[in-house]
Amino acid sequence: MSQVSQATVQRVTADLYVEVQQFYARQMPLLEARKLEEFLETLTEDGSIEHRPGGWKLEGRQQLLTEMRARRGDPEQPLVEEISAREARERNVSYYDGLVYRYWFDRMHIEPVDEDTLRVRYQAIVSMTDAAGKVSFEPTTVVDDVLVRIDGELYTRSRIVTHDSPAWADKIHNPS
Amino acid sequence: MSQVSQATVQRVTADLYVEVQQFYARQMPLLEARKLEEFLETLTEDGSIEHRPGGWKLEGRQQLLTEMRARRGDPEQPLVEEISAREARERNVSYYDGLVYRYWFDRMHIEPVDEDTLRVRYQAIVSMTDAAGKVSFEPTTVVDDVLVRIDGELYTRSRIVTHDSPAWADKIHNPS
Amino acid sequence: MSQVSQATVQRVTADLYVEVQQFYARQMPLLEARKLEEFLETLTEDGSIEHRPGGWKLEGRQQLLTEMRARRGDPEQPLVEEISAREARERNVSYYDGLVYRYWFDRMHIEPVDEDTLRVRYQAIVSMTDAAGKVSFEPTTVVDDVLVRIDGELYTRSRIVTHDSPAWADKIHNPS
Repeated sequence: MSQVSQATVQRVTADLYVEVQQFYARQMPLLEARKLEEFLETLTEDGSIEHRPGGWKLEGRQQLLTEMRARRGDPEQPLVEEISAREARERNVSYYDGLVYRYWFDRMHIEPVDEDTLRVRYQAIVSMTDAAGKVSFEPTTVVDDVLVRIDGELYTRSRIVTHDSPAWADKIHNPS
Repeated sequence: MSQVSQATVQRVTADLYVEVQQFYARQMPLLEARKLEEFLETLTEDGSIEHRPGGWKLEGRQQLLTEMRARRGDPEQPLVEEISAREARERNVSYYDGLVYRYWFDRMHIEPVDEDTLRVRYQAIVSMTDAAGKVSFEPTTVVDDVLVRIDGELYTRSRIVTHDSPAWADKIHNPS
Repeated sequence: MSQVSQATVQRVTADLYVEVQQFYARQMPLLEARKLEEFLETLTEDGSIEHRPGGWKLEGRQQLLTEMRARRGDPEQPLVEEISAREARERNVSYYDGLVYRYWFDRMHIEPVDEDTLRVRYQAIVSMTDAAGKVSFEPTTVVDDVLVRIDGELYTRSRIVTHDSPAWADKIHNPS
């Protein structure tokens, strides 16, 4: 056990832990419900989301909104053909059509940087349920967020999603 | 971020958050272990469980007990034939025979209504492990619970399970 | 609701709950990252891990290190042939080669035994993501840990993993 991690543990109060848990419990259902503007209001104006390795980084609410509008789809639409994340971007395909996707987070580790900045690391997996009830999972990931508190409210300033499969972006994301 | 959700966050104390987590950590293993009477004691006398869309609502411990006794099965028994939730009710089949099922909850959002009433929303997925070790998953759901505190103890007064697949009740729940 | 479980709930403070959550959020990523010595430093010197039913018990950091070095593998290596946990031990096969595995814990129930000893029960499932992005799951389990606090720091003194499938050790763990 390093001294750093000991120190970290001592600094995470129960109130902070619960505040962070409740932040994600409000944030992520907005993305799942395709309430994209509301979701992006839980990021800072210059908030960024980056996918590694071999992925892409989107910066600022406007760039994120454009991308998400084009990709996040509609669960009421038919399933798209089999396609990868990279190909969906290149061919501008709405690749979450026909799917309810849900994020599952676990083992959230919180590290305060200063009074209004937190590093939060967790693992995440995305489930996809289609209209017929078939469930599939995207490859697992580890996520590193920086959260900031502005006027008493938490916001995501940056999110780096590191995928456990190096081939994640080229994988067919909803094989039949 | 709406004013409503800001207010909500401020009202959830760490003690309440942990009390709710520990409530579910006691409640749900009782259902998994088929300790049906003990599970139902964690609901109010008139407690209800409803499945949407196109599902059914069961009200009161007695009605729930009758249904659960007929449906919850025994992991030591052989697997039943392939069957859907709706058909299992119509033909009175014990459709969890041969399976260990476990509930996975995530992103629990807690909203106090008054001193002794809470709204709790979370997402849930059920895993099924058969005797050979095969793992499958039921379609994802979002659950809305109302919890009440009586003599210092939490109880579920109502549970509404909204399934992410409109076809959930007609899906074969444990395809081979 | 038994008096025992009522008493338990009252004794789990929010601070203790969060301390335990953060302990696992530090401990388990070390095992996933194959940082075996660091992982074992989160156990007591005589810490043990036992698998039931029909499994094995490993006692002490040295015995655990020997076993884990031989079995935990390297995600950069090719996948091994199809093999079970028991056969991997008998034939000394590094059966996690080619896989990123992650532990998912849920519904953690904490019961203080005395000031420096805790019983913690939770359910766990292991995901495996291969280089191509295929995700599979090991059969579900229930885990009973005894944690002890030494010089202010939590350590695992014993872990008993009860698998939900009696055939778990003979199951092919990553079928193609």
